Amino acid sequence: MLDFKCSDRMKTLKPSTIREMLKYTSDPTVISLAGGNPSADLFPAKELHEAAKDVLENSAAVALQYGITEGYPPLIKLIRERHKTKYGIDTPGDEILITHGGQQVIDLATKCLVNEGDTVISENPSFIGALNTFRSFRANIVGIPMDYEGMRIDLLEKALKTEKNVKLIYTIPTFQNPMGVTMSGERRKRLYELAVQYNIPVIEDSPYFELSYSGPPVTPIKAMDTTGHIIYAGSFSKVISPGIRLGYAIAPAELIAKMTVAKQGEDVCTNQFFMVAIAKYLEKYSLDEHIQECISAYRKKRDYMLECIDKYFDKRVAHTEPGGGLFIWCDLPEGCSGTELWKFALERKVACVPGATFDVKADPSNRGFRLNFSLPTMEEIDNGCRIMGECLKEFLNKKD
Amino acid sequence: MLDFKCSDRMKTLKPSTIREMLKYTSDPTVISLAGGNPSADLFPAKELHEAAKDVLENSAAVALQYGITEGYPPLIKLIRERHKTKYGIDTPGDEILITHGGQQVIDLATKCLVNEGDTVISENPSFIGALNTFRSFRANIVGIPMDYEGMRIDLLEKALKTEKNVKLIYTIPTFQNPMGVTMSGERRKRLYELAVQYNIPVIEDSPYFELSYSGPPVTPIKAMDTTGHIIYAGSFSKVISPGIRLGYAIAPAELIAKMTVAKQGEDVCTNQFFMVAIAKYLEKYSLDEHIQECISAYRKKRDYMLECIDKYFDKRVAHTEPGGGLFIWCDLPEGCSGTELWKFALERKVACVPGATFDVKADPSNRGFRLNFSLPTMEEIDNGCRIMGECLKEFLNKKD
Repeated sequence: MLDFKCSDRMKTLKPSTIREMLKYTSDPTVISLAGGNPSADLFPAKELHEAAKDVLENSAAVALQYGITEGYPPLIKLIRERHKTKYGIDTPGDEILITHGGQQVIDLATKCLVNEGDTVISENPSFIGALNTFRSFRANIVGIPMDYEGMRIDLLEKALKTEKNVKLIYTIPTFQNPMGVTMSGERRKRLYELAVQYNIPVIEDSPYFELSYSGPPVTPIKAMDTTGHIIYAGSFSKVISPGIRLGYAIAPAELIAKMTVAKQGEDVCTNQFFMVAIAKYLEKYSLDEHIQECISAYRKKRDYMLECIDKYFDKRVAHTEPGGGLFIWCDLPEGCSGTELWKFALERKVACVPGATFDVKADPSNRGFRLNFSLPTMEEIDNGCRIMGECLKEFLNKKD
Repeated sequence: MLDFKCSDRMKTLKPSTIREMLKYTSDPTVISLAGGNPSADLFPAKELHEAAKDVLENSAAVALQYGITEGYPPLIKLIRERHKTKYGIDTPGDEILITHGGQQVIDLATKCLVNEGDTVISENPSFIGALNTFRSFRANIVGIPMDYEGMRIDLLEKALKTEKNVKLIYTIPTFQNPMGVTMSGERRKRLYELAVQYNIPVIEDSPYFELSYSGPPVTPIKAMDTTGHIIYAGSFSKVISPGIRLGYAIAPAELIAKMTVAKQGEDVCTNQFFMVAIAKYLEKYSLDEHIQECISAYRKKRDYMLECIDKYFDKRVAHTEPGGGLFIWCDLPEGCSGTELWKFALERKVACVPGATFDVKADPSNRGFRLNFSLPTMEEIDNGCRIMGECLKEFLNKKD
């Protein structure tokens, strides 16, 4: 039998714990607050149906053929216009690459910028998918602690002074996954200044920022970028549908050209059919109106989960109050492990995600746990938080 | 301004010459025999329309959501059944991973098996997309010369005896790109024996094999694999549509598990919408009937291009007689460069692809050039070959 030796880069890589955990939660008697998906109720299925019909009737020869690696030009144009008009991100030249989801932006940027052994600085905790990408390139990941205002920029500066071969900084500044917090304006400014000062590119991963429930969307860091240090990772997954797999990078043309070559060797081109269909969708329908519908629905769920947390959770458990996105983060008191709580709660048929999953060092003593409010129904939010509250009480009493 | 240093792995990587060359051939006065795409006339747009309608009316919540990284289970089941029944490839367990096109199989397998500096053995000439993938992982590529019966297995054996750290063998055994030749049965058997003897996995890249114009499809090497040494890369791009970006790997479950983890960090999951839609398509329609339509259309074009070559080309130019696929390969006499001919012909408004493009060392003195017959019309085949014939005459006379 084939006795293969796995490459070194794959040795440290574990299957996504969340995806593995979702197997447990496929048990229908478990109330899951563990997911990270948008709600299927909000997919614009009818409008996509119209767009798909139009594509297959009028543009099949283009939409079913290979496309250019950079992406379908009319969709690039629409992304360019939207970001310029709405968010002040000006991309007059070849600064956009359409990708197979936002994840591929992280993958391609890392591929083009980071050698094996180089350092990537990331918020800690952070998105497991990005951490696994950095691991797959054998990067040394340095985690910068988060507080409820985002990445601790004072600690970032310290790291930049001491760490060697830093090639990339990774941040989700708005409604962060897993914490739901938003980096303050002052910290954003300082982060950008440091990137310029140390000449280090920053991935601004921004899949959630338009899902803003307490006011208009925060301006992306990319909007203040006059030097090309910000690699913006955008996505249609949370505002249209993840099943269509469409994201995009906005970055200096020279880097986009490199990422395009990297993409050629990875998957030739993005799904041409949906690049054409989403261009038609954006021309015919108002994405902003659709996003407003998502916001109304998610805002209710966020508000309700915050209410339920206040009502059911022990006051020693701290939690974030996200202005948008999909997640609320809770911190147990000192000395308690989120991983232990997760196991404890799962036995009582409610699922969260333990903080260790998002920890740069996968530290099982991480005190946090993540709750999702986009997928459960209002009733599941109430029942889930109530049971979780009982678990917390019992769990903390046992600790006392 | 951002002054970034590109990672070492991207330094040697050039944009796909073919894709760059296609820019020249967008000139409408140029007759292009340079493409590599299937014909848009053959896309089953009507049937895909029906499938898409069904999906969006009845399965939108699943099809527009994230899917599991392994792929949509009903589609995996259909691929499993088709390969077992028709081609004798038996995959009782978790041996299938659905990917974003066949290219991603090559990418993920290389990621999981090849360290920087390790050796990958490839047919020479070979598919530029695969060569670029190996380059992106900083592999040492050793080319094994091809003749009109496929890879020279005697030279492969010699290489296996002398080369160090060989981690992968890459072959397109059936209707090879760029040469259009098919590896003989005896060589296939010997290749598999060598893979087992030296314990080296083989990627059998097989996007064309069902497009067989001179008899039933050749049995894949994978069908004789009892030891798990063959990583089969399948694709729907040439038999349904490349724009939907669906391919698949068939390999030992242990390797598929590793490739799945690698894929999570690359793009989370394949386009869920088309995994659901193609499952519906395969259930409702006969893919075999559709392939027969493609075969009838392409066979005519192949036959006609071979006729035109016989009629117009100087007899000193050798050419393959492909039993299927999309390409015919020509070899100029000793001392002539395909690259020089390519430039010469382009000035006279007919485009081919010079052999150097597919050469492991990108050797500009490569004597070959590739012609495509799937994209041009019958009239373009006639005119293109006639002009190319005139070019060859002039070109070879100049050389005399």
